[in-house]
Amino acid sequence: MNSSIEELLTSEQQLITEAITSKIESLPIPKRLKDSVLYSVQAGGKRIRPILMKWTVAALGGNIARVYPTAVALEMIHTYSLIHDDLPSMDDDKFRRGQLTNHKKFDEATAILAGDGLLTNSFFMVSNSDQYTPKEKSYLISLLAEASGLTGMVAGQYLDMQAENQEITIDELEEIHRLKTGGLISFAIETGGFIAGVTNQQQLLLKDLGDCLGLIFQIQDDILDVEGDQALLGKQVGSDVSNEKSTYTSILGVDGAKQHKERYVQKMKGILSQLHLTDSDLAQLCHYISERNQ
Amino acid sequence: MNSSIEELLTSEQQLITEAITSKIESLPIPKRLKDSVLYSVQAGGKRIRPILMKWTVAALGGNIARVYPTAVALEMIHTYSLIHDDLPSMDDDKFRRGQLTNHKKFDEATAILAGDGLLTNSFFMVSNSDQYTPKEKSYLISLLAEASGLTGMVAGQYLDMQAENQEITIDELEEIHRLKTGGLISFAIETGGFIAGVTNQQQLLLKDLGDCLGLIFQIQDDILDVEGDQALLGKQVGSDVSNEKSTYTSILGVDGAKQHKERYVQKMKGILSQLHLTDSDLAQLCHYISERNQ
Repeated sequence: MNSSIEELLTSEQQLITEAITSKIESLPIPKRLKDSVLYSVQAGGKRIRPILMKWTVAALGGNIARVYPTAVALEMIHTYSLIHDDLPSMDDDKFRRGQLTNHKKFDEATAILAGDGLLTNSFFMVSNSDQYTPKEKSYLISLLAEASGLTGMVAGQYLDMQAENQEITIDELEEIHRLKTGGLISFAIETGGFIAGVTNQQQLLLKDLGDCLGLIFQIQDDILDVEGDQALLGKQVGSDVSNEKSTYTSILGVDGAKQHKERYVQKMKGILSQLHLTDSDLAQLCHYISERNQ
Repeated sequence: MNSSIEELLTSEQQLITEAITSKIESLPIPKRLKDSVLYSVQAGGKRIRPILMKWTVAALGGNIARVYPTAVALEMIHTYSLIHDDLPSMDDDKFRRGQLTNHKKFDEATAILAGDGLLTNSFFMVSNSDQYTPKEKSYLISLLAEASGLTGMVAGQYLDMQAENQEITIDELEEIHRLKTGGLISFAIETGGFIAGVTNQQQLLLKDLGDCLGLIFQIQDDILDVEGDQALLGKQVGSDVSNEKSTYTSILGVDGAKQHKERYVQKMKGILSQLHLTDSDLAQLCHYISERNQ
């Protein structure tokens, strides 16, 4: 199973990269600033969010062409968040995905502006698309801004930094992850449903599925930071311990984290079954995310 | 004239500050991050952009209640841009409007996140408002994102930093100002017309008026940096010279800059007359901006 899903994912990743690249390339941006944006946009990455959105639409029989503007906007926001999170005053990371971080390759000011610009233009992507009605656009923009703004991802990154060198509870940890990464993963799946035109009740279930999957993604991340293969991951393992960050494994132990994840996996399976999506590529991807080794 | 317009402006500034403050207060944001956002939002400032928008709507007989969501969004974006521009890696300013800059009062990471959050939530302000139709929302969001993103204000700030210690031409300087500050000033006036429901032709004239006024604003800024009264301005004069920045006065001399401004003032008067707005408060405000001493 994994080799075929990995091939599929690779080709989806290429499509997403091409879609973002061509959008950025087409804009009249000062040369070096554009280079900086493209550098981070093309730095690889799993493209989990846009692929989840696309495969949700596909599983529900929606029109795939209607995915791209929102999927690209979402990945632009994810990319901006990585650029800003890596800054010296934030997580101070010098490498990401085996490459220099944006501010190391360019400079801090350019990195901040590249992030600001990606964030701003993500909303333009949706508002200026010809794939949605005006009502759909304002709904999508509201959800996207809410998931990524002062009460969403920005709050999550703030709380994550505050929690460094602090003892926090599992509930506090989970609140941080819901805000910092879960919100955009939920957005991907919920919005996939919206674009495919599902009922409100189905959309709520998809949002719950996104919530489970966001936490599963993060628990697996923490497990891999202890047990993972550095070569596969493309980053150093054990970095959470050396950064004195609270993680699922530091709070629950590795076995406890695995059991905790298993509860969300069971919930995820239940939702997929309720939505009659057990046999979909989307379901395969959900399982792949929960068992990923990179 | 000036004392009465100054009283009017002061009361408008209070209304804008209250509108932004109550919006931010109502959101469930982590305490210190919220404090940081409120600190910059309440730091005073001329509120030129939202007031221009409001007075344009008033001059054209539009519904004032429909101004606020977009005016607040615009001022949130302006505030975010000041927070990020002041950062050590950008303009490295320690004081703004006589107060510590956000990153000096809090810290760099918090300042970056406060800016990111203000930017993101500005789009939520418009998309989630009950004052506009969905079609109006997506139009307003497109204009706002375009004026402030990778081909607008972000590009302007980038080019402005690149131009430091460089000899640039008056055309290059004007391009930077159009992107960095002119775009949002134009947005204020153009959007005021849109909200008031003017014709497309009138909207284009309003955009031109905004373009003139944005440049007039900047030329006057440069003149005040040479001739201004430090106590009135609340900032040090001569800072452009000591920062080796190209300005209207460094390129054209003070008299040349005044003559250059006068050409835009004449154009501005012509547009105001074409729009039959010569006797409006908006026209008074335009003249006030071109002659301001603070």
